[in-house]
Amino acid sequence: MISKKEGLNMNRTKLTELQSYLQANSISAAYLSNPTTIAYLSGFESDPHERILGLFISATTDPFLFTPALDAEPAKNSSWQYDVIGYLDNENPYEKIKKELLHRYPSLDSIGLEKGSLSLDRYEILTDLFPNVSFSANLTPVIETMQLKKTADEITTLLEAGHWADVAFEIGFSAVKAGVSEQEIVAEIEYQLKRRGVSQMSFDTLVLAGTNAANPHGTPGANQVKENELVLFDLGVVWKGYCSDATRTVSFGEPTSLQQEVYNVVLNAQLAAQKAVKSGVTAEYLDRVAREVISEAGYGEYFTHRLGHGLGMSVHEYPSLVAGNDLIIEEGMCFSLEPGIYIPGKVGVRIEDCVHVTSDGCEPFTKTSKKLLTLH
Amino acid sequence: MISKKEGLNMNRTKLTELQSYLQANSISAAYLSNPTTIAYLSGFESDPHERILGLFISATTDPFLFTPALDAEPAKNSSWQYDVIGYLDNENPYEKIKKELLHRYPSLDSIGLEKGSLSLDRYEILTDLFPNVSFSANLTPVIETMQLKKTADEITTLLEAGHWADVAFEIGFSAVKAGVSEQEIVAEIEYQLKRRGVSQMSFDTLVLAGTNAANPHGTPGANQVKENELVLFDLGVVWKGYCSDATRTVSFGEPTSLQQEVYNVVLNAQLAAQKAVKSGVTAEYLDRVAREVISEAGYGEYFTHRLGHGLGMSVHEYPSLVAGNDLIIEEGMCFSLEPGIYIPGKVGVRIEDCVHVTSDGCEPFTKTSKKLLTLH
Repeated sequence: MISKKEGLNMNRTKLTELQSYLQANSISAAYLSNPTTIAYLSGFESDPHERILGLFISATTDPFLFTPALDAEPAKNSSWQYDVIGYLDNENPYEKIKKELLHRYPSLDSIGLEKGSLSLDRYEILTDLFPNVSFSANLTPVIETMQLKKTADEITTLLEAGHWADVAFEIGFSAVKAGVSEQEIVAEIEYQLKRRGVSQMSFDTLVLAGTNAANPHGTPGANQVKENELVLFDLGVVWKGYCSDATRTVSFGEPTSLQQEVYNVVLNAQLAAQKAVKSGVTAEYLDRVAREVISEAGYGEYFTHRLGHGLGMSVHEYPSLVAGNDLIIEEGMCFSLEPGIYIPGKVGVRIEDCVHVTSDGCEPFTKTSKKLLTLH
Repeated sequence: MISKKEGLNMNRTKLTELQSYLQANSISAAYLSNPTTIAYLSGFESDPHERILGLFISATTDPFLFTPALDAEPAKNSSWQYDVIGYLDNENPYEKIKKELLHRYPSLDSIGLEKGSLSLDRYEILTDLFPNVSFSANLTPVIETMQLKKTADEITTLLEAGHWADVAFEIGFSAVKAGVSEQEIVAEIEYQLKRRGVSQMSFDTLVLAGTNAANPHGTPGANQVKENELVLFDLGVVWKGYCSDATRTVSFGEPTSLQQEVYNVVLNAQLAAQKAVKSGVTAEYLDRVAREVISEAGYGEYFTHRLGHGLGMSVHEYPSLVAGNDLIIEEGMCFSLEPGIYIPGKVGVRIEDCVHVTSDGCEPFTKTSKKLLTLH
C-alpha cells in the first residue's frame, strides 16, 4: 500500500535548473511557498493550512526548508537532503525567516516569489520585513514552465495514476443499478480504492445521472439512477503525488436516439482532438478541432468550456487548451482532452482522457473503452 | 440526503453589515475572492480552481456575483438574489470585471480586497487595470471578525456537523481489529458516512496506530493495528457548509501503564481547558491552562502545538488559542481544544472537542465519551 505522500523524491535536477535561473537573472534567492511546488522540488509534501511552509533556494549556497515545528521531523525523514528549520506556534515565523536569510545569504538584495499562490498579506509582511529587497521577480511562470514537460519517470507515475482511474470506472460501472443514488456510487468507488491503497482522490468524484449530468459543475447527491438515463463519471486519484483525471458517460438501459447522437458527437470530437495532438500544433488548435466537430453537428452552444487543462502534481496546471492560447505543444506535455455537450434539462455527455505527447502523437493515461457502454 | 452544497443561504444580515463597514470607511467597493467567504455571504458555493470567482459589494448599490460561465446557471439557481455575471473560458475575466465595475459604480476610487487569500499576481493585474484606484483596505480581518461569533443558526449546523463526527467515531471504533490497516479504517468511516449522505470530510481523516500516532502530522497507511497499541482518530465532516473536527484516542487491548498515564494527563488538560472557557478570558489563557497541566506532569516538551483553532465554514479559522494571543473570548465563538502528547517512537495521544462559548461556559459539538475506551 502506497500512501499519497510516499514515492516522492527530492528533485536535484530541477533544483539545479532553478538555481541556474536565479543566477542568470541575478535573483539572490527564491522563496517558494506553494506546497505543491515544495513537494515537487524537495520531495517533502505537507499541507501547512494557515501555518508557514517555505522552500528557500539561492544560486550560490545550499537551500533550506522552513516548516512548522510539527513538520520538521517528517521533513528531516523525507528524501530532502538539506537543512530543515522548524518554528513553533508561539514564534514569529517571519522574524525567524529573516534571521535565517540574512545569516545564510548576506548579500541578499532580491527575492523571487511565487506570485500565483502567495497571498497579498504575506507579501506585505515580506516587504515590511525587507524594505531594501526587490520582490519583482515572479517565479510562478518559471515553475509552471519547468513542470510543463514531464520526465519519463513522471509519465510512468501518471500512467499508474491513470490505471487507478480505470479501476475506479470499473468499480463505478459495477455499482450502477436502478434506484442507487449518485452519492452511493461515489461512496463505493472511493471505498474500494481506499481499501486497495489509493488514499486520495484528485478532486471530489463526480457521478451525475440523467439531467444532473447536463450541469458541467453538478454535485452528486440523492438523485437516483433511472432506466434510459446517461450516467457521467468524472474522477481521478492522487498516486505518488501525481494526479489522474478522466470522464466516461455510460447508458443505463438503452440510450434514446438523442442520447446516442449527442454521445457520438462528443466521442468524435474527443477522438478528433486526440488524433490531432502532436508536437508543433498550438493549444488553441486542439480546442478548435474538437469544437468544430461539435459545432458542425449543431451543438456548438452547448460546449461551454475549454477543451482541456494540463495536469501533473496538480489536477489543473498548464497548458490550457483554449481559444487564444498559441502555446506550441511539445513532447512530454500532459493535458486533458474533454469535450462535452450539456443541454440543460435534457442530456449531458463528457468524455475525457488525459494524454502525454509522444514523438509521433499522444498516449492516453486512461484506457477504459470510449464506446458507449450500456449497463443493465 | 443533503449534499455539502445544500442548506446554505444568502446572508442578508452579514451583507448589510459589510456594506455599512464599506460606507463607514469610505471604501467604494469590496472584491471578495475567497470561495468560502463568497459561500458565506452569497449562499453560492463553488470551487473555481484557477478560474475567477468574485463577489462585488458596494455600500450604495446592489452587489453582484462574477463566475465562470459554467457556474452562472447554478449561481442563479442558488439562494443568491442579485445579478450573476458569467464569463467564458475564452474571455478575459478582468476586462469584463472592469467594465461591470465602471458601469455599476461610476465613482469607484477604492476597492477593498481579501488580502489573506488573494494571490499577488491577481493583485498586480488589478492595480494595472485600475491605476487610479486605491487597494489599501484589507477585508480579510473584517470578514474574520464577522465570522468570529456564530449565530444561533450556525451553531445548530455546527452541532449537526459534530453529530456526524460522533457517528464517524462509532463507525471507526467498530472497525478496529487486529491486523486491519489504518487506511482500511479510514475507508470504512468515509464509506459509511457517504452512504448516509455526508458527502465531504472537512480534512483527510486521520487514523494512526501505535507509534504512528506519536507524529502529530502522521498519515494513515498500511500500518496495521496491533494489540496493546493506542489508535488515534482525528476527523470531521462538512455539513451544510460547516465543519466539524474532533479527536479521540482509544486503546486496542489493555493499555500499558505509560499509555494510561499519558492519556490521563491529556484528558485532564483537555477537561481543564474546557472548564476554563468563558466570556472574558483570553485565547492565550486557555492555551496556558492546558499546557500547565501537561508541563506539571512532566510532558511539556511533547505538547508541540497550540491548544486550538477556530472553526466554522473553514476547519481552521480564528481565533487561534496560542501563547501571545490576547483576544478576549466571547459568547458565540467556536474553537477546538486539542491538547496532545507525542513521545516519538513511543506513544501519541490527542483529545479534541470543538466547542461554542455559551453565556456561562461552553458546549462541545461532539459528545463521544472521553473516558479511555478499551477495544477488544
